[in-house]
Amino acid sequence: MTLIVQKYGGTSVGTPERIGAVADRVINYCRRGHQVVVVVSAMSGETDRLLGLAQQITASPDPREQDMLLATGEQVTIALLTMALQQRGQAARSYTGPQVPIRTDSAYSKARIAAIDADRVRADLTAGHVVVVAGFQGVDEHGHITTLGRGGSDTTAVALATALQADECQIFTDVDGVYTTDPRVVSEARRLARITFEEMLEMASLGSKVLQIRAVEFAGKYNIPLRVLSSFTEGEGTLITYEEDHAVEHALITGIAFNRDETQLTILGVEDRPGVASAILGPIAEANIDVDMIVQNSAHDGTTDFTFTVQRNDYKAALEIVRAIGVRLGAREVKGDDKIVKISLVGVGMRTHAGIASRMFATLAREGINIRMISTSEIKISVVVDQKYLELGVRVLHEAFGLEQEAA
Amino acid sequence: MTLIVQKYGGTSVGTPERIGAVADRVINYCRRGHQVVVVVSAMSGETDRLLGLAQQITASPDPREQDMLLATGEQVTIALLTMALQQRGQAARSYTGPQVPIRTDSAYSKARIAAIDADRVRADLTAGHVVVVAGFQGVDEHGHITTLGRGGSDTTAVALATALQADECQIFTDVDGVYTTDPRVVSEARRLARITFEEMLEMASLGSKVLQIRAVEFAGKYNIPLRVLSSFTEGEGTLITYEEDHAVEHALITGIAFNRDETQLTILGVEDRPGVASAILGPIAEANIDVDMIVQNSAHDGTTDFTFTVQRNDYKAALEIVRAIGVRLGAREVKGDDKIVKISLVGVGMRTHAGIASRMFATLAREGINIRMISTSEIKISVVVDQKYLELGVRVLHEAFGLEQEAA
Repeated sequence: MTLIVQKYGGTSVGTPERIGAVADRVINYCRRGHQVVVVVSAMSGETDRLLGLAQQITASPDPREQDMLLATGEQVTIALLTMALQQRGQAARSYTGPQVPIRTDSAYSKARIAAIDADRVRADLTAGHVVVVAGFQGVDEHGHITTLGRGGSDTTAVALATALQADECQIFTDVDGVYTTDPRVVSEARRLARITFEEMLEMASLGSKVLQIRAVEFAGKYNIPLRVLSSFTEGEGTLITYEEDHAVEHALITGIAFNRDETQLTILGVEDRPGVASAILGPIAEANIDVDMIVQNSAHDGTTDFTFTVQRNDYKAALEIVRAIGVRLGAREVKGDDKIVKISLVGVGMRTHAGIASRMFATLAREGINIRMISTSEIKISVVVDQKYLELGVRVLHEAFGLEQEAA
Repeated sequence: MTLIVQKYGGTSVGTPERIGAVADRVINYCRRGHQVVVVVSAMSGETDRLLGLAQQITASPDPREQDMLLATGEQVTIALLTMALQQRGQAARSYTGPQVPIRTDSAYSKARIAAIDADRVRADLTAGHVVVVAGFQGVDEHGHITTLGRGGSDTTAVALATALQADECQIFTDVDGVYTTDPRVVSEARRLARITFEEMLEMASLGSKVLQIRAVEFAGKYNIPLRVLSSFTEGEGTLITYEEDHAVEHALITGIAFNRDETQLTILGVEDRPGVASAILGPIAEANIDVDMIVQNSAHDGTTDFTFTVQRNDYKAALEIVRAIGVRLGAREVKGDDKIVKISLVGVGMRTHAGIASRMFATLAREGINIRMISTSEIKISVVVDQKYLELGVRVLHEAFGLEQEAA
């Protein structure tokens, strides 16, 4: 007998009929002798409905109250799915995040899981129950309800799989696996049978919406085999494992990720001295805004330009903060741009092959696409370009690196 | 400074606009120097929407899961109302029943409040917050979410008022007070400025939908002044107090209540011996079904007939149980009737005046209305009649006892 944690997203549980289909799928796993824990999101549309109600009351809802509001979404789903399982003769029991409990810090709307006490879930599994847990939510040390932010249900699933030492964590989505890039942008995009945690991390963090980044981090850290599958079709999906576990596909790169959700902030002409970076990023971090790319260029006149990117929904707040910092530091100018996009090549093969970066830049240059920022890591190269070049850039890179073909 | 607990029902918080109006009303009380705790129900229609989702999954939802589902209704409202208060510059904080915590027994869908730990609410009040609490729900000793059953928000409000030793508990509804009878049935029905707890208890238990019976019991037991007011209009409403607190209106009866929600069960011809009543009612109580009226008639042949009433939603279950008991006791026949209605005269004046019952029976007889069951208490007389006689019966009694006129 193996223990599986499954996660079904909002589309998979979008209607009572679909909830019934999920129940059937879960019971199939039970019949094959598995113990199953199911993590679910809010029914698709529900979170937006709730946010819409809040917006009718106030333009800027208090984060604690917004979490209180949104946490109801998953609570509805766990109750309905548990009813559907019971209706089919399968013993089952639902728990909200606070009930498990899934303990988090107090960063409302983007809380991080601190610890999970899985005793209760384990006891129910032993008693023959399917345990249905609300994703996306937890409880802080004062008993306040928190949410992990959108997509946090993946993290809940992986964290539960870790706490329960599950054999596999299965993420059911509306796609049948991880692709070399978004098939809506490049029709030749190909499903990957396997991908390493590191690659998946880069793909996810760069905007592949398949999996939430923290979920992949968690799974990688605790070595929980993670599988992305479709809720609507049969298939093996994409297995995410350690590199050493599988015969590496000898491709230079594995996939191309892109992210429309970033915006750029620039401070021009500040005094080039130690501490300037932290003077700029300190207040940003204090405001709980995550920074992605950071580039600093020193001029020869003793001043420096500093550019970084933040998520779109932090753009306004970040711009305000940076403007205040600009004044304090005597900057020549502060600029913001929310019409940018990031495109990244990802692949563990990159480590052992030189020339990837130059081939990437040459490919983009040939199409007249200007590169505004560059950032590299061991297994990825990212560039920021104007929004309008997104589709073209991804398409030409997909072709240039032969991603439409299976690796030799 | 006084401490007021206010409760707003589903209609009062039915839309974001109405929630805004409730926030305005609450802030008016705060400005007058009161500390305010607000208990709210689910937005009107929400409970039915959730039950509808459940019904699409299963005809008989598990009670635990149904409570899990329904508890989300009030949770949405507390978040929205708190946002509305904050939006207007009033510090406020929301709590679900389990967060307060409001501790209940484990009788899902009709749990009873066992204890309230009000420390958290008190601390927030002292800190200048309006505290917004989800009505209708609590948590059992195992941490499972429970609901108090429909209308339970009134009980939550009164129980909180008791735990906080509040100065007044105000129940805001869509009516402007307690009437001598339902104005939709008798247009001459008159609003009462005051009513005693005992009378209100009888009125509520007999189907006056204004207040939930357990709320009145609670308030009476702990002597919390209770006031019924309209959320939509200004006015004094109806104050519910101890008899000695007010100049008794020297009316014979205070009001006429009726209940369409009862059904009748009869076991005919069982052996007339000690213990037969408990043999019948024991299994009913074990199934957590409340019994209202009970009548037993002994025949001269050593057998007895036993009739009692239960709420409409318990009718099917009760009938099944009674059929089984009938077989076990060798009853001649078991009958059920769900086409009945109960009409009751209520008034503390009844204690000191004879002849009320005979005038009641004579009034009904004059209209050809057959009485099927009679039950009396110190301050009420109830009769069960055929459903079709409801309006006629109430109308002629309202007139016969001069209820349309103010008491002398």
